[in-house]
Amino acid sequence: MKISVLTMFPKFFESFLGMPLTKRSVEKEKAEIEIIDIKSFAKGSFRNIDDSPYGGGKGMIIRCQPLLDALESVRTENSTSYLMSPKGKVLSQKKARELSRKEHIILICGHYEGIDARAEKYIDEQISIGDYVLSGGESAALVIMDSVIRLLDGVLREGSADTETHESGLLEYPQYTRPSDYNGDRVPEVLLSGDDKMIDIWRHTQSLLLTKKYRPDMFERYNLSEREKKLLEEAEASTSD
Amino acid sequence: MKISVLTMFPKFFESFLGMPLTKRSVEKEKAEIEIIDIKSFAKGSFRNIDDSPYGGGKGMIIRCQPLLDALESVRTENSTSYLMSPKGKVLSQKKARELSRKEHIILICGHYEGIDARAEKYIDEQISIGDYVLSGGESAALVIMDSVIRLLDGVLREGSADTETHESGLLEYPQYTRPSDYNGDRVPEVLLSGDDKMIDIWRHTQSLLLTKKYRPDMFERYNLSEREKKLLEEAEASTSD
Repeated sequence: MKISVLTMFPKFFESFLGMPLTKRSVEKEKAEIEIIDIKSFAKGSFRNIDDSPYGGGKGMIIRCQPLLDALESVRTENSTSYLMSPKGKVLSQKKARELSRKEHIILICGHYEGIDARAEKYIDEQISIGDYVLSGGESAALVIMDSVIRLLDGVLREGSADTETHESGLLEYPQYTRPSDYNGDRVPEVLLSGDDKMIDIWRHTQSLLLTKKYRPDMFERYNLSEREKKLLEEAEASTSD
Repeated sequence: MKISVLTMFPKFFESFLGMPLTKRSVEKEKAEIEIIDIKSFAKGSFRNIDDSPYGGGKGMIIRCQPLLDALESVRTENSTSYLMSPKGKVLSQKKARELSRKEHIILICGHYEGIDARAEKYIDEQISIGDYVLSGGESAALVIMDSVIRLLDGVLREGSADTETHESGLLEYPQYTRPSDYNGDRVPEVLLSGDDKMIDIWRHTQSLLLTKKYRPDMFERYNLSEREKKLLEEAEASTSD
């Protein structure tokens, strides 16, 4: 897939482009990433890409012309464009999967106080990463790229993407590595048993327990099977002994 | 405030540290940011900071020793430590404000499949930025820093942080800048009127309308005053004429 990012701060993405996952996705030709500087599309004698808002108020608003000229320079009939915006729907794992199946996504970063509202109708969708204020769309675009790139075929090791939180609808089970005793804390015996079936059952039960405890909202949306109900009941009975 | 980030990928943060907002916060001595490489705390002949999980499975788990040694190297009695984790409570603007009032926050980035679960009890809180999977905690720590730094006194221009979405509980009103006519799209007349009172009313009404339309969940949590109810009714009546 191709990812185009429109930004006033292209340098923001330099470190991300150098990360192992990003580099692997580009080297394996799974992702083509281009960072477009909106500033290079400014026209006119002042070449300004932003200006103060009509009606007064603090901050600067990105003008239609440089933003939309930048968009037109990368858009094709196979592109979907996304504006990083608090008005947008909040990113979910399902949405990340949807984006990862697109041929070309364009991520548009607003900055300062926002973009001229008349530009919005030229953009396909608005998207947010959460209900908090960021200094600009750059961190949001980075998070979207991170969540999308790892879903591309062949970028992660086989199977790695499937067992994680938000894919299964449950939190991941606790993981342990060497040493088996750390400051008196021992790894649960079952994990040292070599009994794969017991380990699977223990891990799945832990996922259920953790999700119920820490993310009751996720747990409520999860459809428990009869077997899972039983596992959970047994586990809860044994801890309350 | 002081922000310490514990990571296996210190280079991830280089671009962020060079951004105007980050630099301003550091130059004005509002924020002190240190990026700690967990790898430099690895001990033993192999100096490995991660290892395969007990009980089998793909991926590598960060070991207790280097992670907790790195944590102890920066922790003081005024520190609060946060593990980037899908198990954590999802970041909100309220939580970002809470963090911005701390003396010292430590942001711990897990990577690969996670960290040894026995390390969790040494960490004060777990925090998530949303219900999607990231390749590691780095993007999450960056988002948290971005949301926190802009809240520090004197980092943003006076007043800029207050009118934005998530601070007021409403989406921000649409903004426009020059030219007043873009491809036949004109800026709403009221914004050109110079009548500050009318502009305030128009903007507030737009915030109410946009929030109701795009973020019904936010709108439901918002306590409408009698005056706001009337503004909304009038606006809805006039658009349906």
